[in-house]
Amino acid sequence: MPSIDVCFSPDLLPLYNLKGKIAIAVDVLRATSSMVTALAHGITHIAPVRQLDECLAYKEQGYLVAAERDGVKADGFDLGNSPFHYQEESVRGKFLAMTTTNGTQAIQLSRAADEVLVGAFLNLGAVADYVKKANKDVVVVCAGWKGLFNLEDTLFAGALAERLEGHFTLDHDATLAAYHLYQTAKADLLGFLSKSSHVQRLERLHILPDIEFCLQEDVYDLVPVLQGDFLLIAQK
Amino acid sequence: MPSIDVCFSPDLLPLYNLKGKIAIAVDVLRATSSMVTALAHGITHIAPVRQLDECLAYKEQGYLVAAERDGVKADGFDLGNSPFHYQEESVRGKFLAMTTTNGTQAIQLSRAADEVLVGAFLNLGAVADYVKKANKDVVVVCAGWKGLFNLEDTLFAGALAERLEGHFTLDHDATLAAYHLYQTAKADLLGFLSKSSHVQRLERLHILPDIEFCLQEDVYDLVPVLQGDFLLIAQK
Repeated sequence: MPSIDVCFSPDLLPLYNLKGKIAIAVDVLRATSSMVTALAHGITHIAPVRQLDECLAYKEQGYLVAAERDGVKADGFDLGNSPFHYQEESVRGKFLAMTTTNGTQAIQLSRAADEVLVGAFLNLGAVADYVKKANKDVVVVCAGWKGLFNLEDTLFAGALAERLEGHFTLDHDATLAAYHLYQTAKADLLGFLSKSSHVQRLERLHILPDIEFCLQEDVYDLVPVLQGDFLLIAQK
Repeated sequence: MPSIDVCFSPDLLPLYNLKGKIAIAVDVLRATSSMVTALAHGITHIAPVRQLDECLAYKEQGYLVAAERDGVKADGFDLGNSPFHYQEESVRGKFLAMTTTNGTQAIQLSRAADEVLVGAFLNLGAVADYVKKANKDVVVVCAGWKGLFNLEDTLFAGALAERLEGHFTLDHDATLAAYHLYQTAKADLLGFLSKSSHVQRLERLHILPDIEFCLQEDVYDLVPVLQGDFLLIAQK
């Protein structure tokens, strides 16, 4: 039976051997939630890039460019990190380049894996179905916050572990922790997270509607997969 | 109100500013449990050292020397990492030098803090009382397993957070995670941990009595504190 493991910080990723495995990069608030939303609403390609200048350079090639640093849209970019930005009719059919504080870094650092997927509560069931079919070991790569552990990405890992129970082994310590935390939190994810100083900091940016949106499970039935420089919708 | 934060891996410690704070190094299975036990049973000084050869050099100075690597006693040393080794009458009054896979590293890496304490379930209440009196920010430094997150050190952090509730803020994400995991686990710590592949690996070393011993709360009313090169019992 394949296993599901969880890496709580990109800074710990050097300790994980990703070869032969599927990495699932997750930054629930809000990068990977926005990416899933963007692909669901007609963005066809997303280039996840690490640096602001690298991202801005895509603009000359006709891309929409999106950038977030410390929770707010960076100057000179078309879009920020809110999933609502990606539900507009105007984005349909466009290419997007995106850089965020944590999420795009986690994706790039996961490249040693056989496949890199993007996960969020919004596409939880689709990700679970995809990895069950692939039947390979999985590592959930939590973007965290500037290298620190965060609760919301951990809860996603726990939710995924629950969906994979019986098909994957859950006996890594990080997986068990995530699984049990999700059991405690799942009846009221927002209420659970609202005690967190990290989430309170996000709430002070007046993005509570974003947070509520990002905590919904199974809104979109698609899995973004990294192919070369781009995230595309995986073929079923 | 001061805060309690939790660092899940020594590899993440560079992200924490320990200046002005109290660090509590914890390696429940078994280094810090053995250290607390040793001081309770009459060892007067413990030198926590990182390297095997550095530790062995203390033998010429008349120290007892203890070393564990990958869960077993290293060749040429007097003692291993079992708390039962330190309950013998023969250790009373001795100096001890000790190196372990994870625990002694966590102690040395915590030196940037104002004070470095050693915590375990065995002295949980004593540690809680000490930091309440000190009234400074606290960071629990989990030794983990070779840089990876582990459950038992996290549960200690959660137990300490519970004891400090009302006196310290618990709103860091790592602290909330540890706190909630302890709430889930506390009725049966051993049962909770027994699903972990990491703890199963320890059980295969036939140290189940060690594990049961180390999961007892409030057995010893003392706090080891690092003074120069030595852990000593803190003055009340």
